[in-house]
Amino acid sequence: MTEALVLIDIQTGFDHPVWGTRNNPGAEENAARLLAAWRGAGRPICHIRHVSVEPGSPLGPDTGGTEFNDLVAPLDGEAIFEKSVNSAFIGTGLEAHLRSVGVTDLVICGLTTPHCVSTTIRMAANLGFRVTLAHDACAAFTANADTGWADDLPTMSADAIHVTAVSHLHGEFADARATADILTGMA
Amino acid sequence: MTEALVLIDIQTGFDHPVWGTRNNPGAEENAARLLAAWRGAGRPICHIRHVSVEPGSPLGPDTGGTEFNDLVAPLDGEAIFEKSVNSAFIGTGLEAHLRSVGVTDLVICGLTTPHCVSTTIRMAANLGFRVTLAHDACAAFTANADTGWADDLPTMSADAIHVTAVSHLHGEFADARATADILTGMA
Repeated sequence: MTEALVLIDIQTGFDHPVWGTRNNPGAEENAARLLAAWRGAGRPICHIRHVSVEPGSPLGPDTGGTEFNDLVAPLDGEAIFEKSVNSAFIGTGLEAHLRSVGVTDLVICGLTTPHCVSTTIRMAANLGFRVTLAHDACAAFTANADTGWADDLPTMSADAIHVTAVSHLHGEFADARATADILTGMA
Repeated sequence: MTEALVLIDIQTGFDHPVWGTRNNPGAEENAARLLAAWRGAGRPICHIRHVSVEPGSPLGPDTGGTEFNDLVAPLDGEAIFEKSVNSAFIGTGLEAHLRSVGVTDLVICGLTTPHCVSTTIRMAANLGFRVTLAHDACAAFTANADTGWADDLPTMSADAIHVTAVSHLHGEFADARATADILTGMA
């Protein structure tokens, strides 16, 4: 089996206050630990960049928020795929690239857990990849859930959004594991 | 705009006890109300059937669980798409069919909220369809979330699974509305 690391939308645009408060402040550092290990092992790496087509979006090209976080900035020669929707498999060459290099398994991390990470993991699993979700290398923001569709529902904290999103995925679409556990398994 | 109704996996296989307890006991009746309204208005209807490839699955062909619930059984001539993964857009002709009949908007309902409904809605939105989620014509089961990936997390009730799944979708991938509200909007 060949296992690729897929880093989703770890960009400076997520520093913007519009997203509200977040959980897992160490998510980017954990993603960087995974990235260093993948580089060291010579395994495939895919960087996913969100380029919003919504005017004024913090993740759009006119705001600078499409830059990768320095902690996980790609090196020359590493694969980068740009998307404008949540799924990294829609409108990109990601699936064809993974098939072309013989990848069967994925470790996925990034931002945000319930939106782009969850959607990409669901499609990855449904396309036949075995997926590990590095849950502590992901984070959610309070803007990632909206309980306004029903009366009398409380708002959700960032941690509650993250935990419920991971729990919906675990066992059905992915095996959710901690970064340290994934790294130990590589040793 | 042309708005299609997409009914996901409303099958007898979900009567099996393996799924645990559920919420929204009236979901199938609400789906039937939407179906009757769509038939009356002559709008496009797509029935999605899950045909599991896992031996012994309650949604597999060897257990009888691939039969549609009588409340929403297709009429002759209505479109049926069969899938074996969560997303109704993977391995099926659903997208091509919707494009061919000029559909731009979807109302989606069915089973289960956090798995096949959520995954199909995410892909629909990312493929460019405007999506309404008929939240009370969907249901979740306690088997649809697994908190075993972290220590000390409580299990989730079926209603909590449903509510959090809808809240992750609302405003990002879909507009979550009650069946009665959708039907009033058609009048």
